[in-house]
Amino acid sequence: MSHDLITHTFLPFFDNDVLRRSNDAGVVIPKRSTPDHNLDVGKLAISTDSHVVWPLFFSGGDIGRLAVCGTVNDVAMMGADPLYLTAGFILEEGLEFEILERIIKSMQASAQEARIQIVAGDTKVVQNGKADGVYINTSGVGILPNDLIIDGAYAQPGDIVLISGTIGDHGIAVLEARGELGFRSGISSDIAPLNDMVQNILEAGADVHVLRDPTRGGLATSLTEIARQSHVCIEINETSIPVRPAVNAACEMLGFDPLYIANEGKLIAIVSEASAGQALEAMRNSRYGDDATVIGKVIDKPEDRVLMKTALGTTRVIEMLSGEMLPRIC
Amino acid sequence: MSHDLITHTFLPFFDNDVLRRSNDAGVVIPKRSTPDHNLDVGKLAISTDSHVVWPLFFSGGDIGRLAVCGTVNDVAMMGADPLYLTAGFILEEGLEFEILERIIKSMQASAQEARIQIVAGDTKVVQNGKADGVYINTSGVGILPNDLIIDGAYAQPGDIVLISGTIGDHGIAVLEARGELGFRSGISSDIAPLNDMVQNILEAGADVHVLRDPTRGGLATSLTEIARQSHVCIEINETSIPVRPAVNAACEMLGFDPLYIANEGKLIAIVSEASAGQALEAMRNSRYGDDATVIGKVIDKPEDRVLMKTALGTTRVIEMLSGEMLPRIC
Repeated sequence: MSHDLITHTFLPFFDNDVLRRSNDAGVVIPKRSTPDHNLDVGKLAISTDSHVVWPLFFSGGDIGRLAVCGTVNDVAMMGADPLYLTAGFILEEGLEFEILERIIKSMQASAQEARIQIVAGDTKVVQNGKADGVYINTSGVGILPNDLIIDGAYAQPGDIVLISGTIGDHGIAVLEARGELGFRSGISSDIAPLNDMVQNILEAGADVHVLRDPTRGGLATSLTEIARQSHVCIEINETSIPVRPAVNAACEMLGFDPLYIANEGKLIAIVSEASAGQALEAMRNSRYGDDATVIGKVIDKPEDRVLMKTALGTTRVIEMLSGEMLPRIC
Repeated sequence: MSHDLITHTFLPFFDNDVLRRSNDAGVVIPKRSTPDHNLDVGKLAISTDSHVVWPLFFSGGDIGRLAVCGTVNDVAMMGADPLYLTAGFILEEGLEFEILERIIKSMQASAQEARIQIVAGDTKVVQNGKADGVYINTSGVGILPNDLIIDGAYAQPGDIVLISGTIGDHGIAVLEARGELGFRSGISSDIAPLNDMVQNILEAGADVHVLRDPTRGGLATSLTEIARQSHVCIEINETSIPVRPAVNAACEMLGFDPLYIANEGKLIAIVSEASAGQALEAMRNSRYGDDATVIGKVIDKPEDRVLMKTALGTTRVIEMLSGEMLPRIC
């Protein structure tokens, strides 16, 4: 629904070159609209995300850490160094102060870890029953070198596809906190800031074409988006995709596919074949990248498609998630 | 409550030089955290606001126009040229598509008027009863010359205080739309982008010390904030403050003071005495500035105070609004 809303409702009205690129953050080169000042302000990556996750706290994280890391990661996926964050709170009347304080402390700790500065904030209070505790919007601004272009449309046949670790952890942790699992999985959300990993990959000299964090809709949805943006086929190997046994077990029980479960501390990197080794090493040497691995490659046909070689040796077409399988997962 | 929340809850944790200035937008000079790239990206003003106004439509505007202009104005109040906007939507399940479309069209038209580009967006859907139609966060990024400093802490004794037009229109228009007036006032919200007016004031060469848009809490609250930030006394003349007769009538009936009613298309300018004439002329020559006028001056004592010479010749201390008089006014 979100993809449809964006494509069919927002884009036609807000249409511009930046939004049309459909990346995690908009990349812009500021030009003053009145040209009397000659200011060179480089290239910026700008992103926004509203966070409505429910419940507010779950194993491995909370809405505050999610709000900071979610936007840090969106900015980082453009290759940018995330520098500034804004935080807009919508509070439901009656929210306990202790809860808000825990969330704010968590945001502060996450911002510190990601070395991003919160430079603007806003709070609004709505009546009881007009929100659900607290919703948090964060927007982020990062800077990147003028000659660096990382974009969902830049995957090329021959490229290698990497994932930075196990998939599905965040979604299962939130479902468990909702009491929807019926057993204790031991799974914690993977929420984490990935900006250091991105800088490590770039500093290793890897020729990076695409970076994306597979959040809502999971790995399958993100890969399908990239295949469509780049007009290529992405071929992945089921047996290469790291999934924790407990996540697999929970998915089997609930009838879900881990490919579609949200992640909040993972990134997909699509890099030239020649630099796949450097990229993989840089990911594994980064915090949160221990389980990084190659999961597939980019081929030319069928365009706009993701194919998966299954454990059984067959090939399956991976479709984009239609509808929101897990509402309020982030 | 918002002032208290920000001062006592958010600031202690998010504390940094930018937020502590308590301006409408944070002003930053980007420096890359890894110093291997030598990027000069000038000075940015960054702002965020979540909009929860109820009802969604009212005379003179709607939540969409409010969301764009509110953030454009916050960025402009730092003297910056607002260039980029993000839009984050929280939609209540069941919201009619036609309503969303009207709001988006209104945002697009307002963004076009303000010549600001929407570069990132996000939508989240929450269950029926977990929001109220739609909430919209906008964050804005603008650029400003490195040598320009406009700041709430820069009001100086001798400065002149100007307002760009009549006060209280927005608040009364929203109250009327809620059916709380009991009569038809004929008042429309003043929602408007003020970035052109700000550029006109600066281009006229006025020596501008403070700019602020008196939104939530009205003129009284904004002036008190500035008096406290600058440690000065702001003295205003009741008879100089432009208020439409219908706004006055509505306020008398409801027991409100127009000084505390929200505005969404007005700015306070505090400028050196020598440049007050230039500033006033530039404001009057700008769209939305027909009724601009001088309303007072800055004196040294009593510090941190706003005093008003009343129509009766007495002097009244103007207090900051405590509690939220009109919830969900923006």
